[in-house]
Parts: sequence; structure tokens; C-alpha cells
Amino acid sequence: MTSFRHLKSVIRLNELAEDPIDLTQEEVITPKRIDAMIAGALGFRLFYAMERITEISLTALFELAEETHAIKKMVDMQAGEIVNCIHGYESEKRPALHTATRDFFEQRNTSDLAKEATELAYKECEKLRAFLNEIEKNGQFTDMIQIGIGGSDLGPKAVYMALEAFHKPGRRVHFLSNVDPDDGSHIFQQVDLEKTLVVVVSKSGTTLETLTNEQFAREKFKKAGINPKNHFLAVTGKGSPMDDPQQYAASFYIWDYIGGRYSATSMVGGVILAFALGMDRFLEFLRGASAMDKVALRTDPKANLPLLSALLGIWNRNFLALPTVAVIPYSQALSRFPAHLQQLDMESNGKRIDKKGHVVDFDTGPIIWGEPGTNGQHSFYQSIHQGTTCVPLEFIGFRESQYRDDILVQGTTCQEKLLANLLAQSIALAIGQQSDNPNQFFPGNRPNRILFAQRLDPYAMGALLAYYEHKVAFQGMIWNINSFDQEGVQLGKKLALKIIAQIAALKQNKPIDPKSFPLGAAYLKHIEGG
Amino acid sequence: MTSFRHLKSVIRLNELAEDPIDLTQEEVITPKRIDAMIAGALGFRLFYAMERITEISLTALFELAEETHAIKKMVDMQAGEIVNCIHGYESEKRPALHTATRDFFEQRNTSDLAKEATELAYKECEKLRAFLNEIEKNGQFTDMIQIGIGGSDLGPKAVYMALEAFHKPGRRVHFLSNVDPDDGSHIFQQVDLEKTLVVVVSKSGTTLETLTNEQFAREKFKKAGINPKNHFLAVTGKGSPMDDPQQYAASFYIWDYIGGRYSATSMVGGVILAFALGMDRFLEFLRGASAMDKVALRTDPKANLPLLSALLGIWNRNFLALPTVAVIPYSQALSRFPAHLQQLDMESNGKRIDKKGHVVDFDTGPIIWGEPGTNGQHSFYQSIHQGTTCVPLEFIGFRESQYRDDILVQGTTCQEKLLANLLAQSIALAIGQQSDNPNQFFPGNRPNRILFAQRLDPYAMGALLAYYEHKVAFQGMIWNINSFDQEGVQLGKKLALKIIAQIAALKQNKPIDPKSFPLGAAYLKHIEGG
Repeated sequence: MTSFRHLKSVIRLNELAEDPIDLTQEEVITPKRIDAMIAGALGFRLFYAMERITEISLTALFELAEETHAIKKMVDMQAGEIVNCIHGYESEKRPALHTATRDFFEQRNTSDLAKEATELAYKECEKLRAFLNEIEKNGQFTDMIQIGIGGSDLGPKAVYMALEAFHKPGRRVHFLSNVDPDDGSHIFQQVDLEKTLVVVVSKSGTTLETLTNEQFAREKFKKAGINPKNHFLAVTGKGSPMDDPQQYAASFYIWDYIGGRYSATSMVGGVILAFALGMDRFLEFLRGASAMDKVALRTDPKANLPLLSALLGIWNRNFLALPTVAVIPYSQALSRFPAHLQQLDMESNGKRIDKKGHVVDFDTGPIIWGEPGTNGQHSFYQSIHQGTTCVPLEFIGFRESQYRDDILVQGTTCQEKLLANLLAQSIALAIGQQSDNPNQFFPGNRPNRILFAQRLDPYAMGALLAYYEHKVAFQGMIWNINSFDQEGVQLGKKLALKIIAQIAALKQNKPIDPKSFPLGAAYLKHIEGG
Repeated sequence: MTSFRHLKSVIRLNELAEDPIDLTQEEVITPKRIDAMIAGALGFRLFYAMERITEISLTALFELAEETHAIKKMVDMQAGEIVNCIHGYESEKRPALHTATRDFFEQRNTSDLAKEATELAYKECEKLRAFLNEIEKNGQFTDMIQIGIGGSDLGPKAVYMALEAFHKPGRRVHFLSNVDPDDGSHIFQQVDLEKTLVVVVSKSGTTLETLTNEQFAREKFKKAGINPKNHFLAVTGKGSPMDDPQQYAASFYIWDYIGGRYSATSMVGGVILAFALGMDRFLEFLRGASAMDKVALRTDPKANLPLLSALLGIWNRNFLALPTVAVIPYSQALSRFPAHLQQLDMESNGKRIDKKGHVVDFDTGPIIWGEPGTNGQHSFYQSIHQGTTCVPLEFIGFRESQYRDDILVQGTTCQEKLLANLLAQSIALAIGQQSDNPNQFFPGNRPNRILFAQRLDPYAMGALLAYYEHKVAFQGMIWNINSFDQEGVQLGKKLALKIIAQIAALKQNKPIDPKSFPLGAAYLKHIEGG
């Protein structure tokens, strides 16, 4: 395959990007343009009239998708091809079969491998349902604490917060991730241990933070005279050090072809979400995700929302050279969703080599950040509107609220005001404002798009999660990078273990061997001094 | 004053930045360099050996501070000079006297104006103490809900979360900001109205989201047959529409010389923080902030931590051309502090004109984002280590935990593991790693610094808050921009009101006048369709 920069479509896109459409000119942003630039699927609509594109650049982007065989690669991924690899070098050499963890809802013509993965995942769902039925009968447990970090924390927590409006009465959940002991202390002050389940999540069963926090949690139970075994559950790989019936009341399995950041629909998210929301709502969430998986296979790029979004992102990143993306949900329930997307996108596509091991000569995944609107409007929007670094935005919005508990103030509800703000910002950022007062001049041309749905319910949340999973995967496929490994986290871990050993030595009044890791020792000298 | 790009020091810095020091070369990062590149004040130490600077570039940065009269401008700001203005154009023309809201702890030789502001602020503290004493005696109130947005939310909430370990037993606080009705519904499900105080915070008394949420909250009380008047407090400007004893049990004042994002140490943060933590701890927090205000006046830039940090940031932003800054506290308690800094920095310095109204030809405030460590390590650090966009980092760390509830695992505590990870990342990001496997190659040269203190207590939190306030203000002073207005938020507000009117018309089955705002109508046509 030709390298990205030499693709015909990329050369064409580079030409087009020399003079992108100016959204601030009269008669550019019109009602007609808004009408024309809408894509839809599963009740979602993607409004993209405020992006700096034309039908011509869009056509070139679709050619890019064809030239890089994006859809074919998505089909292969969902069929269980080995997509997690770097050719010619030691690498993980695994499929990425997160779509199989939710492929329960229709007959599909897919590979035996994917079918097998689906059957295994379904078996875990059945096991979970039986376990939760027992809990329900027993009635003992009101609280669940999930101990995990990264993908075992961010996705499940973001989804839980998104759907808290639908939680089962009398059930509370907590997430313990940071090795900072204050994180655990804070949580354990809030629970009654007798009524609490702890679910420990680590695919390898060896994650330092998670094992440390598990020990922290087990101590709490032991000190209270309660046998932790009856309160601890494991979500881990079969045969991992954590797959141990002596230590856990139940084990739920995940597999090495499910990446952490793609695992919210596996048992990594399943145990706590089904405990909090009930099994039926968890399945509804999976159904939404699975439906979006099918949308990602559509060959018409205007009907394939994740692919369309991926291409618009590539236009902004590689051709308009914009280094960041802000994801702004106009929904308080999605307040932690940007943190999940930050991991999903930056850990998947924050890469410097392609799948052949060549250093790339173009930009890969951008910096992802964001906070909910309207809050952001009273915070960083000053910079978004008038700063010197242009930030493209991905808005998310809904027509209805979740709780349906609203008031009329001067003729409109809160939800309608929220919506009006979203639409107003989208337009304002694109068209800007002329003024003789330079402080009231808005340059405009801030590209943005809106993903819009009727209401944030379990089905919509599943679809939204999968929309972003596939947007990220498509970008990796088009860039020809490996979106499924994370070698970049290893060096820090390795050096941390050296410093932990140095601290342990210091505590035993043993001298630090300065040759072991002199830079760590140099920092410690100042810090341990007090 | 000469424009930024033509300053002698800037020309020199541009030359130096053509070939910045390569931190990955052998014998560059050494224990000696770590020892040499430490600055300290108030028990804080700033380690900056991992920045891409040398004594030569540092000297040029200090010359930049001199050439732009940075310290003189800080003295002027704290004395109440009119710093919030654009010369020759209509602008707010106000001082920025947030330092006066905490200047109670030592005799100072400052201006009459600043003294008067301090006296007024102290009077509000006294009023607050008396009010809280009444509450205490009465014993009725367990919960407080703060209704505010932007600076009336982010700063107070970040500080509250940072100091939750020190909260008064039996007191709970909540923050309602978003006009999303689900935000309010979620909070009101958790409180007993009889025991709840609501503090409404808006300087102008006219903030749309805040007034809407206030009405939402008042309805809850009315429906429960409780007179809201006895439960509602106002924090507002004297004489604002909210300064009304018929509506509020008590009013606390702020002034137009306190910007929202600089208001956490005024009554905007004061009422809820003193309710939650007790008045003495709130004053301790102010004492820390005030002490850092004095550090910001030090003429030796190596002893002036906020100035030193501002200059290092300018080196990264203007000379190494890095578009973002990640703030990574290795402390779960600071999990929302980056969101506060995002507002503080991006709303202050996300500007495109200088104080004379000229469009700048250099970059101003960067994109600020961040999440706590070690969580980030399992999320976006892949991109930080190996992505194509270099991200400078500002770490924050502490020697001791807050709760002092910790366990030993294999010879070290959780807190020590947290610390080891912080130090390891700082080094790893700078020095990188060579490897024959391109996926295990780390390019290094990711600049970072660590602000370190013994423990995150109220005093340290105050100092930390003020450190960042002054870092941001110094950068604005050096760039000669106005860090204290936010004209960039007006356009979106204006267009939102138009769309709100269109929705209100639709609901009364009145046709939308398409000429009123055709683009809003075009969006609405698709959305109101369902």
C-alpha cells in the first residue's frame, strides 16, 4: 500500500486545503446548505454544514476512504482478522473483536471466529444474568465498587453516569481507579461493607494500580471481620492469576482480543452496568452498540456515520492542520464521556509508526478534550471563539431530557434553552461576526458538527459509544496505523518500578545504588528530604 | 511599548529556539541538572530540569520578563490599577482585585483602593462567620446546593473536591450549573429540602442558566410547601436584581473588580467552602492564596514561582510552538482542578488582540486540559509518549496523602507508588528510549515540570490556586493582552436568545419569521421534526 502522503486522494485533498471554503462569507452558510449536509442512521442525525468542506472536498474524502479500503478493513475487523499487529516486528498479533461482545441481536453472515467470540460473550451474559438474579433474591447487596483503571474504569464509568437516570432504585455504584490512597479512602467512607460487592477488573490480572487497590479494599473487609471472598468478583482473562475461585465469589471472562478501551460492552462494563441498571437495560445498551456496528459496514459513506465523521476529522487534522478536537455534549449526563473518548482516541491513534513499522510523516490522532455545554460556554469558549489556536468541535445533543422533569421559564423549557444554545454556538463558531471594535470581532471558520438524537437512553448510549469506537478505528485504518496496541505506556511503567524499588530500599535505610537509576535517585533526594 | 515579536528578548529567544537542547542526548539530563533546576517558596518546589531550556534560554526569558515589566504590572494589578481594558475602544475599564479578597494576614504597604477592597471583603467574611454560627446553633441544615456557572461553579467545586477530606462531618454540598434539566433533577433526588440551603451566585444577577436553575430549585421548594425565602442565599453585586431581602435569607457581596474565574477566594467560593469545611479552614485556604500573592511580587524570577512557570510556558508556546498544555495532578482530590484551570487560562488568555486593540501576530493562551495521574497513564499517555503532537505537561504532586489511610504492599505505600509513577513519567517523557523495534522507540523531548508540596491541605490549596492565577496573569502581562475580559462569549449568547424566541414561537404555533434568523430556523426545522 502506498504511504498516506502519496495517495492520489491525499494529493488532491492537499490542493483543496490550500483554499478551504470560507464559512464567514455571505451566502455560504445557508438554510439550503444545512438541509443538504445531514446524514442519518438509527435515529441519529449528523449535521455537518458547519465544517469547512464542500461537495468537492467531500468527494475527495470519500475517494480517500476507497483508496485506503476503509470499509473492507472494517468488515475484516468485525470478522476477526488480525488487525492488532505491526508487520515485521514483534507485536500483539490479535484480532479486535469488541463488536462480537454484542452481536446477539440478528442473524449474521460472518466468520466462524467472530461467531465463536459472540457465543463466548453471550455465555458470560447468561452467567451474569443468573448471578444477578441470585443477588436480587438474596437482597443483601446495595452497593458495588468497580476496581479497575484505564479502559476498566473510564468507559464503564462514563456509560454509568450517562444512564444513571435509568438506574435500579436502591443500587449505588462506585469506581476506584487511582493508586492514590485518598481515592479509596473517600469511597470506603460511603459504603456499608456488609452490603457491598467489589468487582476487580484486569484482563491480565497483573495491573499494578488495580492489584494494589484490591489489597486496599480487602484490608477494609478483613478489618471489619468480613470474609472478602464472599464480596469480591473478578473480571479477567481465563487462567489469569485473578481467575481463582478461592479468592472470588464469581469470575467473568474477557479475552485478549478485547482491548481495554473497547471493552465497555464486555463483562468489563457488563457486571457493574447490569447491577446498576438491570440486565434488560444493559442488553438494550448492547443492542444500540450492535446496531451501530452494522451502520459502520454500510458502503455508502453518507449513510455510514462513523466513517463520515472519521473523514471529516481527517480533513481537519491532516489538511487543515488542527491539532486538537473538543467533544462537547450538551448533556450533563455525558459529563465523563469526553474522558472516555480521550482514552479511546488518543490511546488508539496517538501513534508514530504505521503498520509496517515506518515512522509516519503526517499527523495521527489529535488531542481530545471536552466538557459539557452549556458549562463550557462560561469557561473555555472565549478561546474557542477568539483564541489563536482554532479548535474543531464535535457537539452531541438530544431533543428530550432524561428525567423529563423540567420547567417553563418565559415560554421555553430548560431542555429547549440547552438545545438553543447548542445550535447557536454551532452557527456562531462558523460564521463569526464583523465589528469595528476589534474585541467584538469574531473570526469564525471554527469547524464543527452536531450528532443529534431524540433522547439519551440505553439504546442511544450504546449506539453513541460504538459510533466513536468506529470513528476512531476508521481513522486508524485510513492512516494505516495499529489502533489496538499501546506500547507507549510501557516505558513509564518500567521506570516507575525502578523508583518504587529505590523508595523501598530507602525505607529500610538501605542506600540507593546510584547506578541503578541515578535520575530517580536525584529526584528522590529532594523529595524524601521533606 | 514595542509589540511582542519585536522585543529584543523575543528575537533572541527565537534564535535560541531554532536549536533547543535535546534532552535525549547522553549527559544532558543528569542528577546535577535536576539539583540545579529547582525553585522554591512556601513549601512548594518547582522542578524544571525536564523542560527544554538551558541557563542561556532561561536568562533570555528573564530578560523578556524585564522588557515587558512583568513584575511592575503585577504590583500594579494588586494595587488596583485599571488592568481590565483595551485602550482606545469601549471596554470594561476595571481593576482586577481578586488578591484583595484574601489580603488579611499581614500589614501591607499598598494602595488605598486595594485596602478598601480588602476591608470590604473582610466584612463579608465576618458576615459569613456570623451567619454560619447561626446555622451551627440552629442545626437544621446538612446540605448546600450552589447554583452558578463558569467561575461561580468550576473554581469553588474544584477547591471543594480538593479539600473534601477536611470537610465538616454531616455536611454535604452539591453544585448545579448546567441549564440541562437533568443536572438539577439528579441533585434534587439526593437532598432533603427541609435541611437544604441553596446559594445562588451571579455577579450581575442576570446569568440565564443560573436564573433558570434558581427557578427550577424554587419550584421544588414550593411544591413541597416550603417557603424558598428561608432557604435561599444570594452571592451577587450590591444593587443587582438578586440583591433582594424579600427573596433571600441573606446576601453576600462581590464587586465588578473580581472576575468570575478569579473569584474562588471571594464569597463566590466562600459561602459554600466555609459551610463545608468550616470558617477556619476557609481562612487557612485564603492565607495560602495570599502568601502566594506575595511570592508573585518577588523580583528574583527564580524565587517567583508563578512568573517562572509563566515564562517556561511562554517558551513552550511561542518558541517551541506547542499548542496545548496538559495539567496532570498526581492526586485524585485534584480531579476537577484541570477543569478550573481550563477556564482560568483559556478565558483569560484565549485572545486575539492586544491591549491597544491590535490583532496579535503570535500565539496567546494554549489549550489547557488534563486528568489525574496515575489514571492518565492508562489512557492518553500513549499519545503523550508516542503521538505526533508534542504535549508539554505540568505535573502536580504531594509527599503525603490527605486521609493518611494507606497500606504497605511489597514494601511501599500506595502514596509512594503514586509518587514513583509521577517521577518516572517526568523522566521518561524527557529522555525517551532507543529501540530497534520502532514501536518501542520513544522520541522523548516532551517538556515537563513538577510542582511539588508536602500535602494538599487548605493552605497548600490556596497557594496552588493563586500560583495558577498569577501564572496566567503574568502570561497575559508579557503578551500585553487583557486577561480579565471575555467578549468572546457574547456572540453565542446573542444567537441563543434568537433561537429561544424561535422555539417559543413554534410552541405557540406561531410561524417563525424566517428573516429573524434563518440559520436558526433551518436547524430547528430538522430538530423539531422529531
